[in-house]
Amino acid sequence: MTRTVLESKTKTVTIGFDEPFCVIGERINPSGRSKLNAELEQGDFSTVEKDALEQVACGAMVLDVNSGAVFKNKMAEDPRYADNNFVEPALMKELVQRVQAITDVPLCIDSSVTGAIEAALEVVEGRPLVNSTTGEEEKLEAILPLCAKHNLPVVAISNDETGISEDPDVRFEVARKIVQRAADHGVPAHDIVVDPLVMPVGAMATAGRQVFTLVRRLRDELGVNTTCGASNISFGLPNRHGVNAAFLPMAIGAGMTSAIMNPVRAVEMEAVSAANMLMDHDPNGAKWIGLSRVLDAVKDGASFAEAAKAAQAAGGGRGGRRGGRRRAG
Amino acid sequence: MTRTVLESKTKTVTIGFDEPFCVIGERINPSGRSKLNAELEQGDFSTVEKDALEQVACGAMVLDVNSGAVFKNKMAEDPRYADNNFVEPALMKELVQRVQAITDVPLCIDSSVTGAIEAALEVVEGRPLVNSTTGEEEKLEAILPLCAKHNLPVVAISNDETGISEDPDVRFEVARKIVQRAADHGVPAHDIVVDPLVMPVGAMATAGRQVFTLVRRLRDELGVNTTCGASNISFGLPNRHGVNAAFLPMAIGAGMTSAIMNPVRAVEMEAVSAANMLMDHDPNGAKWIGLSRVLDAVKDGASFAEAAKAAQAAGGGRGGRRGGRRRAG
Repeated sequence: MTRTVLESKTKTVTIGFDEPFCVIGERINPSGRSKLNAELEQGDFSTVEKDALEQVACGAMVLDVNSGAVFKNKMAEDPRYADNNFVEPALMKELVQRVQAITDVPLCIDSSVTGAIEAALEVVEGRPLVNSTTGEEEKLEAILPLCAKHNLPVVAISNDETGISEDPDVRFEVARKIVQRAADHGVPAHDIVVDPLVMPVGAMATAGRQVFTLVRRLRDELGVNTTCGASNISFGLPNRHGVNAAFLPMAIGAGMTSAIMNPVRAVEMEAVSAANMLMDHDPNGAKWIGLSRVLDAVKDGASFAEAAKAAQAAGGGRGGRRGGRRRAG
Repeated sequence: MTRTVLESKTKTVTIGFDEPFCVIGERINPSGRSKLNAELEQGDFSTVEKDALEQVACGAMVLDVNSGAVFKNKMAEDPRYADNNFVEPALMKELVQRVQAITDVPLCIDSSVTGAIEAALEVVEGRPLVNSTTGEEEKLEAILPLCAKHNLPVVAISNDETGISEDPDVRFEVARKIVQRAADHGVPAHDIVVDPLVMPVGAMATAGRQVFTLVRRLRDELGVNTTCGASNISFGLPNRHGVNAAFLPMAIGAGMTSAIMNPVRAVEMEAVSAANMLMDHDPNGAKWIGLSRVLDAVKDGASFAEAAKAAQAAGGGRGGRRGGRRRAG
């Protein structure tokens, strides 16, 4: 059975065929978040810290840390800031240190800049997930030796120099190539988490079926864990949460073992938790019962993050310990 | 490709591997509905008619009509009413006539009394689904000749004289036996819709996985369509709609092609509609877009049935025709 083991200083999280679906919190990412970008430029990490705590309270088992900021003001003063190879290593180091100081979950080190990943590895505790390599030659030769040297698992995105193919068979072959090249470098298949690339179903009607078929093949033929940017599926459609909340259980049923997603959204987390129970990955439905209490509080007017934090503080948390509500009351 | 064709007087509905999931409305069923039971005993069909219209407005493609009433008062006066062989044929005939007079969807004739099914066949228009046979000898010999004679499709429930097995392999073999016996009687596999039996996941942790595996096998090995009483999965658990709303997409992803369910529940119908789109069974997402408008109205305070009826009346219906909202406004 394929098991990708991630570690923080104190906690082990296993992504695997016989494990609950691994929710990787996506919020710590300045791309498309102009307010967060501006804060980071000013050295303000308050939103990062709030997002880290909230995501863990809401059920994130791993936190993605992306350093892809654009520092517009600094850039105007100092042209070096126009180069992410200059910006990201220092920023990533700070992000990792801040996040691991206040949470206990493993991290997913997310940057297109190899130097940023290297900088993270200087300070990160435990065994993070490296995010990511693609099938591009340059990328493979930069990332795989790094993973081999530090014995780290890696996200493998199934595109290459030719871009993202709309043909799922081509994407499968890119994944196969990465797995083979990783083996050459000494990174085993169980340490590769393939992202088969999720297209918007509103633009490509076969997008859902492609993912379900690819996940099954990646699992059966390559023996690898899988992940995806789940919310891509609903891009451009009305009521996106409803699409995401059906997509996630279907992907889990097809064998997907993790996703990079927003755990602060109740609808999606409810779908993941129910799917875990339906896959027999929630003994006695304890996590479902715990989450149901949080959702009851949401119905009574609390935000999901508030209700989840209150449950966590009460000791019931998402483990659904029976004493949670009693002690809270 | 397996296609089970149902017809009303004016409408054809196909249950099939390449069709949208077929929602069979379960509401017209006096079992466990004491108010409906009492109404039927008094010859009052107002709830039946309301339920028929509401279910179709909410998206039911077929209506199940179950005549299993218990007439307590009549029974006290006339002992013949203690026998369902006496009660159901006349009641079923009336139910079928009332429902088909005000709706245009095909019916699913649901009774454990063979005489009630025969009575329905005297008055029903089109090609209904017969619900059901099991693997019990007596049942097979009563129902299969009837289906053969009238060229009708049938629901096959995978239990036999020994009861419902907890072993999915045994349930599969019961289904295989029914398919073989049906063939002997001249009922082809494409006219058999197997119910693999859904156990509560709260009582049997493997219940979900069993269904997903069985559905896939029934489809691949026997070439049959499938159905289930979907809400059984969540029996005894908190937040049942959340469990159902993950189960349905997972079952659809595994290949299930219909369910007998409550279409007046927005959460479940949203999950089915999203799953249809993700299976590439909703061209241009038109039905999803139509439903999203209805759900917007629900967010604004309408009940799902009210909002669905308003959309239907406005001509947008669930087909998501673009003019719907404009004309309504």
